[in-house]
Formats: sequence, C-alpha cells, structure tokens
Amino acid sequence: MAGYQNRILRVDLTERTFSEESLSKDLTHDFIGGRGFGVKLLYDELKPGVDPLGEESELIFVSGPLAGTNAQSFGRYKVFFKSPLTGSYFKSSSGGYLASEMKFAGLDVIIVKGIADKPVFLWVHDGQYELRDATYLWGLDCDDTHTLIREELSDPHIRVACIGPAGERGVKYAGIFSDRRACGRGGGGTVMGSKNLKAIAIRGNQRIELADREAFAAAVKEQIKECQNSPEFANFSKSGTQMGEFTNILGMFPTKNFQEGVLPNWEQIERTEYDKLRVRKTRCYSCMLHCGSITKMGIGNYAGAWSEGPEYETIWAFTGPVALADIGLTIAADKLCDDLGLDTISTGNTIGFAYELYERGLITKKDTGGLELTYGNNKPVMQLIRQIAYRQGLGDILAEGTREAARRIGHGAEQYAIQVKGLEMPAYDPRGAKSHGLNLMTSNIGADHNTGYAPQEIFGAPVPREVDRFAVEGKGELTKWNQDLTALFETGILCSFVPSMGMLSEEVYGRLLSAATGVADFSDPAYLWQVGERIFNLERMFNVREGFGIKDDVFPKRLTGEPMPAGPSAGQVFEAEPMLIDYYQVRGWDVKTGIPTKAKLDELGLGFTIGK
Amino acid sequence: MAGYQNRILRVDLTERTFSEESLSKDLTHDFIGGRGFGVKLLYDELKPGVDPLGEESELIFVSGPLAGTNAQSFGRYKVFFKSPLTGSYFKSSSGGYLASEMKFAGLDVIIVKGIADKPVFLWVHDGQYELRDATYLWGLDCDDTHTLIREELSDPHIRVACIGPAGERGVKYAGIFSDRRACGRGGGGTVMGSKNLKAIAIRGNQRIELADREAFAAAVKEQIKECQNSPEFANFSKSGTQMGEFTNILGMFPTKNFQEGVLPNWEQIERTEYDKLRVRKTRCYSCMLHCGSITKMGIGNYAGAWSEGPEYETIWAFTGPVALADIGLTIAADKLCDDLGLDTISTGNTIGFAYELYERGLITKKDTGGLELTYGNNKPVMQLIRQIAYRQGLGDILAEGTREAARRIGHGAEQYAIQVKGLEMPAYDPRGAKSHGLNLMTSNIGADHNTGYAPQEIFGAPVPREVDRFAVEGKGELTKWNQDLTALFETGILCSFVPSMGMLSEEVYGRLLSAATGVADFSDPAYLWQVGERIFNLERMFNVREGFGIKDDVFPKRLTGEPMPAGPSAGQVFEAEPMLIDYYQVRGWDVKTGIPTKAKLDELGLGFTIGK
Repeated sequence: MAGYQNRILRVDLTERTFSEESLSKDLTHDFIGGRGFGVKLLYDELKPGVDPLGEESELIFVSGPLAGTNAQSFGRYKVFFKSPLTGSYFKSSSGGYLASEMKFAGLDVIIVKGIADKPVFLWVHDGQYELRDATYLWGLDCDDTHTLIREELSDPHIRVACIGPAGERGVKYAGIFSDRRACGRGGGGTVMGSKNLKAIAIRGNQRIELADREAFAAAVKEQIKECQNSPEFANFSKSGTQMGEFTNILGMFPTKNFQEGVLPNWEQIERTEYDKLRVRKTRCYSCMLHCGSITKMGIGNYAGAWSEGPEYETIWAFTGPVALADIGLTIAADKLCDDLGLDTISTGNTIGFAYELYERGLITKKDTGGLELTYGNNKPVMQLIRQIAYRQGLGDILAEGTREAARRIGHGAEQYAIQVKGLEMPAYDPRGAKSHGLNLMTSNIGADHNTGYAPQEIFGAPVPREVDRFAVEGKGELTKWNQDLTALFETGILCSFVPSMGMLSEEVYGRLLSAATGVADFSDPAYLWQVGERIFNLERMFNVREGFGIKDDVFPKRLTGEPMPAGPSAGQVFEAEPMLIDYYQVRGWDVKTGIPTKAKLDELGLGFTIGK
Repeated sequence: MAGYQNRILRVDLTERTFSEESLSKDLTHDFIGGRGFGVKLLYDELKPGVDPLGEESELIFVSGPLAGTNAQSFGRYKVFFKSPLTGSYFKSSSGGYLASEMKFAGLDVIIVKGIADKPVFLWVHDGQYELRDATYLWGLDCDDTHTLIREELSDPHIRVACIGPAGERGVKYAGIFSDRRACGRGGGGTVMGSKNLKAIAIRGNQRIELADREAFAAAVKEQIKECQNSPEFANFSKSGTQMGEFTNILGMFPTKNFQEGVLPNWEQIERTEYDKLRVRKTRCYSCMLHCGSITKMGIGNYAGAWSEGPEYETIWAFTGPVALADIGLTIAADKLCDDLGLDTISTGNTIGFAYELYERGLITKKDTGGLELTYGNNKPVMQLIRQIAYRQGLGDILAEGTREAARRIGHGAEQYAIQVKGLEMPAYDPRGAKSHGLNLMTSNIGADHNTGYAPQEIFGAPVPREVDRFAVEGKGELTKWNQDLTALFETGILCSFVPSMGMLSEEVYGRLLSAATGVADFSDPAYLWQVGERIFNLERMFNVREGFGIKDDVFPKRLTGEPMPAGPSAGQVFEAEPMLIDYYQVRGWDVKTGIPTKAKLDELGLGFTIGK
C-alpha cells in the first residue's frame, strides 16, 4: 500500500458507489491544494443554480498537502459546498485530527454527492470504502456519535466528522464536528444532513511521501524558529483566543445586536478569567501553538459545565447579543452547540436578533412560548439553543438564520438581521475597524472574519504597516492584501492564526510546499500570491455565476447609517461606498457591477469563467 | 516485566503512597479469588464500626483469576466496602473491560484507603502508579470523565472506572461506572467520592500466566460447548434481560411501590418492543453471550435518547414505581443515571417511595417544588433523577435512600420504604416467588437479587429441581443452594447469568480454575461448594461483628402482612417466620439469633471470627 496517496475519492450516496482518481498535475500546479482545490472542484462540479440541499449538490472535504507531516499548524481540513444559508460558494474549516487521518488514508479530497435512502456513515480505511447503516446514530449528539462509531468498529483511534441533531433537522447553520472542533459556518452540516450522511469515519496507515525529505526537514526547522521568535507565541499558546477584552477596549464588541460597542461588565470575560477556568490545554495534529483549552466551571449556575473552548467568537456569541457577560454561560452554551451541532456565531447572533425583536415588540411572549428575551436576562439562552437545534417553537424560525427569519416575520424585522449575504456577522463591529468591515462586506462567503482578518487594525501586527483603524483611505488595498494572503496560506491548509501573528513567512511556506510536492514554482512567494488572488477571484466568479454582484456587498443600515453611540469607537459609521469602490479598483473589478474584469481574469488564468 | 502479576496494590490517598504485595498461597487456597478475596480482605482490613465514609474506610477493587483469559464470561470486577447505605458488608460488581485490564496491569486487587486532600484519579500502568489531579474532572459526568482521562493520557485504550456528580455529592446509592457499566448498588461510588477519588484509570501489557496452558485450553473448549448447548443461549444472546413481561405474567412485577404485582400496560415494555429499538449488541471482555444492547428511541417524547441497556431491573425502576410503562423513559432515565452516576434500582425504588408518600399526602407540592407525583404521571422522573444526583430540593432527602429518608420524614413513612437492611428492593415481589424473597431477606448486602437468584421459581431452570414458587417448604435449602452456588462461581468472577441458565457446570469451572492457578483442590466441585459456603458465612460474620442479626433479616410489613391484591399472585403474602427458621437451620445458624454456630464456623475454617 506504500505510495497510495493524494487521491480523490468520489462517493455517490444515491447509487452507493465509490470511485477514485488521482490529482491532476495542472490542478496541483495552478491551485496548490486545500482551498485552491476546493474552489476549483466546486466550480467545476456544481451546475449553476443547483439546490444546495438537493440530489445534485455536493459536499467536498479537502485536506492540505502538508497535513500529516511534521510541519506545524497544517492539521486542518476544509469543506466546500454551496451554502443553504447564503446561496453562495462556501468554505468552512476545522482543526483537530481529521485532516491528517485523511492523508494517512491516502486521500486529499472526498467528494460526496447524491442522497442516501436512509441514514448512513462513510467508513474509509486504507483504500477500503463502505457506507454503513447510521439509522441507530440518527438523533445522537456529536460526542456520542464519535463514541459509538469507534465502538462499532472496535477502534478508538478512528477519526470522525459528524453532524448533530441540528444538521439532521435542516437548521441552516448546522456544522460538521470532529473531536469537538467544528466546520461551523454556513451550513455544511445542513448539506450533510440533507444527504442522510451522519458521519465520515476515517483510519489510515499510509506513510506520507515527500518529494525531498531533507529540504523538507530543513524548512520545518526554519518554520519552528519563525514561530518561536514571534512575540505573540507565549501568550497565544497559553490562552488562545479566550479573551473578551480586546474589542471591548476598542469599543467594537457588538452588544445588543450591534446597537452598542461595549459590554458593560466585560471584565468578567477577560483572558485572566478564562485562565482561572482552564483545566487543560489541547492542540491539533502537529501544532506547537496548542492554543486550545478545556475550560470548566467550578461554581455558580453552570457548575460542572465544560467545553473545549470557548473561543473568542463564542464568548461573544452568548454575551454581547444578550448584553450580559456571564462566563459560565459561554462555556455551557459552547458545549451545547458542539453537542447539538450548531455554529455558535450564527446561533448567538440569531438569538441577539430575537432579543432585539422582543425588546422592540415585534415578537412577544406568545411567540417565545413565555420566554422573556430582555437584555441582561440570559436565562432563556440554553433553551433557545435547544429549540433551534430541534426546530421547536420559536427555534423553528430562528433555525432559518436572521435573513430568512426576518423575511418571514416581516414588519421591518429585516433591518435587525445583522448579516451579509445571509451569513450572520461575527464579533467585530465594522464601525470600529474599517478593513475588518470591508472584508466582511466582500468576503465570498458572507460576513466571515477569517477570510481576510486585519490584525493590523486590532493588534498592530504583523508588519508591514501601521494602520488607523477608523481611516477609510487605503483599506481597499489592505483588505485585498489580507484576503489574498489568507487564501495563499489556506492552500496549506495553514491555521489562520499563524499568518495573523506573523509566525510564518511566505518564503518558508514556499519551501515547505516545494519540498513536499516537488513543484518548483511553489518556492516563489510571488507565485504563491498569484495563486491566492486566483483563488479569491474564482470564488467570486462562482458567486457571479449564481447571480451575485455589487448588490450583495452590502451591510444592514445600522452599520452604515447609525453612528456608534458611545465608547472608544463613538461617532463612527462604516463608510461603505468609498471603500467598496476603492476595493473594487484595487481588485481590478468593474466598479459598477463588482465583477472581475476580463483582463483580471485572463491575468489569473481564469478566462474559463467568463460568460458562465 | 513478564510474570509481573497477581499482585495486591495498596493505595493510601492521605499519604499519597503505594505499596505492592503478592497474594498469599493460603488466601488463594482458602478463598480462590474474586468475591472470596474481597470478603476476606475486607474482614481483615476494616475495624469494626468504622465510618464507611471516613478516613479509615477502604474500597477494594478485585479482579478474578480467570479475567483476561479466553475463558468465557469472567471479565468482571467487584468492589468491596462497608456500605454507607446499609452499614453492612457490601459487594458490587460490573462487567465490561476493567477486570481484564487490571490483570494485564498485573493486579488482582487494588485496596484504596485514606482521603485525598483534593480530587485525584489513580493511574495504573504496568507497575507504575500515580495520583493525578482530578480537580478539573470534578463535576463531570461519567462519559465525559472517560473521554477526558483518555485524552489527558493520550491513550484511547485506557480503561476507566469513575464516579459521577452523585458520588461526589454523597448520594448514598452512587455507583462506580466503567464504559457505561456499573457497580451500581450500595454506594461504592459514595465511598469513592468521600475519598476524593474521581476515577481509576488502568492500562496494562502483561501476558496472563497459566499453570497449565494445555489443560486450560481444553477446559475452555468444554465451557464453550456447555454454553452453546444451553437452550437459553440464543434468546439471551439476542435480547439479554431486556424484557418487562416475565414477572408481569407471574403477577410479581412490583407496581406502585409494591402495592400491586401487575403493571397495567406492561405490553409496551416487552422483549419484542426492545428488540425493535436495539441498534447494536455489546459485550464484555471475552464473553460469547454478548447480552448487552444499545437501545435508541426514534420517536416520541424521548426521540434520540439512547443507552447501553436498559436491563430488566432498570426497565422496572422507571415504570413499576410510577405505574406507567413508557419505553422511552426507561432508556432516557437509564442513560441519565449512567451519566450522573446513580444506581438505577435504588433511584427508581426511591422515586416510587416518593410517589406513594405524595399519593398518601405525607408530602405535598410544597415538598416536591410543584411536581405532581401521581401514578401514571412519569413526567417528573427525569427531573427527580437530576435532583437526587445534585441533592437539590426533594432530591436531597431522597439521596439518603428510602430507609433514612423515611426516618427523616416521619409520620409513618417508614412502612413505605421497601428495603432490606437499607438496600432498596429490586424488581421481584417476594410474595410471588418465595425463595427470591428469602434470598432478599437474608442476603448479606440487603435486598439484592443477584446474591442467590432462584431461576427455578421463575424459569424452571436450571436443573436439578422443579419448584412451586408459592410454596414455603424447601425454600431454606433452595435459597442456601443458590446463594452458595453464586458465591462459588463468583470466586471467578463469573457473570451470574451463566449459572442461572445452566451454562457452566461446577466440574468445568473447577478445571478452568485448577489449570489457571495450579491448585489441585479447585478441580473438586465439593471443595468449590465448601468455598462458596465459606464466603457466604464470612460475609455474615462481618455483619455480625457490625451488630447485625435476626432483627435485620426483615421485610417491610407490606410484604408479610398485605396479600397481593390481584393478578397471578393474588392472595399471596411472604411467610417470613417459617422460612427464615428453615433457612437458619439449613445454614447451621442459631435460629434465635441468626448467627452461624461455632460448629459451622469451625467446619468452614472460620473459627477466627468467633467472638469478634
């Protein structure tokens, strides 16, 4: 079985068939791997206008070219699909141990299409593929699903990616969970559920082949040095993203559904508070950052509650929206979302949307089944999470996401749906950091902070520049730079924290890629940047083919029309028009339509997308 | 490390010290192993009158001489302790995979004494012993505790035995849980919690040594033949004990706290109903019976609920006491008890006690926090289980068990506590099967059905006799026979279902023991019977030393004074006095005191207990 690797596995759930193919040299050269493979395959595979939850939609799992090696922080996988929440191209990613196990099983890509006639799970092990009955797993939470699959196959080392009850019930922002880490955003779990695919289980024993082992080892050594030399390394290794303070200090911690930018009692969700509750560190495969934490409450309403996390976004999701910092709830709600299979960001944002509607009288106790959704009262949150996952009561409509829920509720509810392209906005108020805002507005998957995170506005890092977070000028170029850099490293699939903190240069990354694959071009940073831009533009063209354009690069009026009322970002609005035009120009896109020009597409080798 | 086995490990939690000793030849010869070791060690170790939850109490884990071998159905361990629920000697046992792992780690016995100054878990691996911090595990449920310990030690094959929140909070009938199987009865988990010992984690790699491998292999072959030849084998392998019908058909399914003997809608908890919900079979180490099941609800109030089980006793525990057969609740409540670390029998019986008090007006909504404990309304059950485990509300007093709870409630509540020696009675009404009753009355641990189960009265099996279940005559001898037979096989530690169904003869058992240990006497069935009787009498002498006697072999008045009102056991009472005198005489015990005579003790080599 040696050398059995770098394959694409195709699974047809309707026909219950499997086929394998090798990765083509062209695909590898032009898109490197990871996010590059994902967007190219999704673009080629999906018919325009396909129903995301229909027979013809596909779900594509991709591991990166460096997963399973001893290079650091590449142990991530991504899923690609047309999102049932946004109708757009979607990518969602997760750390953990699934990506490396895919490689050990010889696979870079798993393409799943069709719909199984009853619940199944896919069992992949060293070239053997099987669809096994999952009727008995249907309804189980994510942790239990892991346990029972490992027991069924008598191998506790099996890696599992599965959905929870939320994915089974078509909650539009259901995620895919593997060892308590999530491909959370955009409804990958919803697509998986629509296919009657409860889980993927993987175990492999292949050795990872490298084109030049010596050069690779040298590059890994360099990478480790760069990482250790980062001034952020020690702090980040200790606490990860477990801190609620930094955006509050900047006055851009979305509070009361983005009505305010400072949470009154935010000191209770500071880094130092989580430090006290941390009971163990966790890490992904081959990652020296070990930024993960298991956190546990010892006292109070949530005594005994624990989770792996919560990360910063989740800390926000269950505090800002309900206007109360309660550290216990952040932990309990995090675990509940992990168990039930929900994206915490969309869940928390949607709950915040419901609170605002209740406060404004657009919904009443009759709609909430008696729950009082008033700011500062976070008692209903756990129940709302369950109601969303199981689509009970008010949860049935909230399960659609804010955009669609608002449409159904009517009476002006739309203005309180704080989302872009249907994806609920995360924990950064765009009025307090304009490049963050511009990224959220233009990201190809909707309001996703990780598509082009601008650390320069928040942390002053990394070099090459100092940035005024409120300034409008130059944000088009900065946003493009961060977006393309992210895409470049996500061919890896590198953890996005690493470039954010300047822990890996393009040069060393290029050496790793080149030594692993034998493709000389990869060692040229300029080429990597071009691939990054190519990926971002192809994603855009996927959306253009689906009818997306300038009309979809838009914020709710609150962010562009209502100045931040108080705090360190007081008076700021998001100046959408000048920044968007600037961005389109920098991108080489038509400023009237937001569509990449022919010249830009030809330059990037994406001429094949023109006129599609 | 070869030959590193058959050790006793002593752990002192107060001093944080470990010591090892070898098993003595005399102990092995006189008590064989398993239950024999447990009672002898407990008798020798504990001072009379010791506080079960104090510094000087001990908790003794024992694996059997055949665990870890390929002999069938010996993969069980037992814990021995003075019970905080009964004040008596106690043994509690569980299947699964812990017993074999103890043997692989070289240990037959682990004796734990003292109290740790903060929560710890014991980590045992191949002669290495360590007390590790368990502060972060305190408060976690049993499943999560397994997961996090395996993650902390980066070895998913580790076997864990742990307590849940109930054991931490001193619930008097908290159990010890290992891979969803429980040493449930009598409060072993309570003792463990009082010692601040959250868990024991074991991993071993020793080869099991056998005195005569060839003879052993031949005996195993014989055992397998005997098992396969049993007419019960096929049915039991399929459904295990998942059946609510057989005692209903006999009119002895305790209903409404033993007021009645037939549950009105018992057809809903029949074997055939569980067959429909069974999603997977499970088994213990080296057991061809694989009687375990994972059962899952697909629809209804408890959709998605699953458990490993429920066994017959648990099926009863959440139906009979509340007078409603609801198959979903049996599954959901089973899992909840497993998670929280509760004995299902005592939990269900105690809830039934609360229902009767409520129905009779001895407690009201004020006491129950608004819950309506009326027959046929099972909605409060899940909440009551949580309240017991966390000692909240009414649960705080119910956590003491029926005897103590009744004492505190007063107003005649004592008559509704259906227990013997403080141990809640299981799912057999003694009025419908007199030897069952006599066993429950005389068992050394209180009302435990497994100490001397009388299959002859229920199933007509095994040979050697046909029995009239209502008859008084001959029940002393039959009870002694079943009790001594059970003790004999529990030197193994054989699963008690095996002799109940005539699946292993004393002859073949003796050959297994003798080939494994090299002790010739073990191949003589007469000798094995003598050891069985020795064990039972030494247990009795432990209790005598604690002040127990004839006054404690007693039933609540309901069972001796109130005839069964209707059904196939209508009109029956339990005729305690004649049967008890008969039993004492057959046992060679003083009929006035219930204490073994000097002659009997000398005959059994237990002279050392006289006058203690």
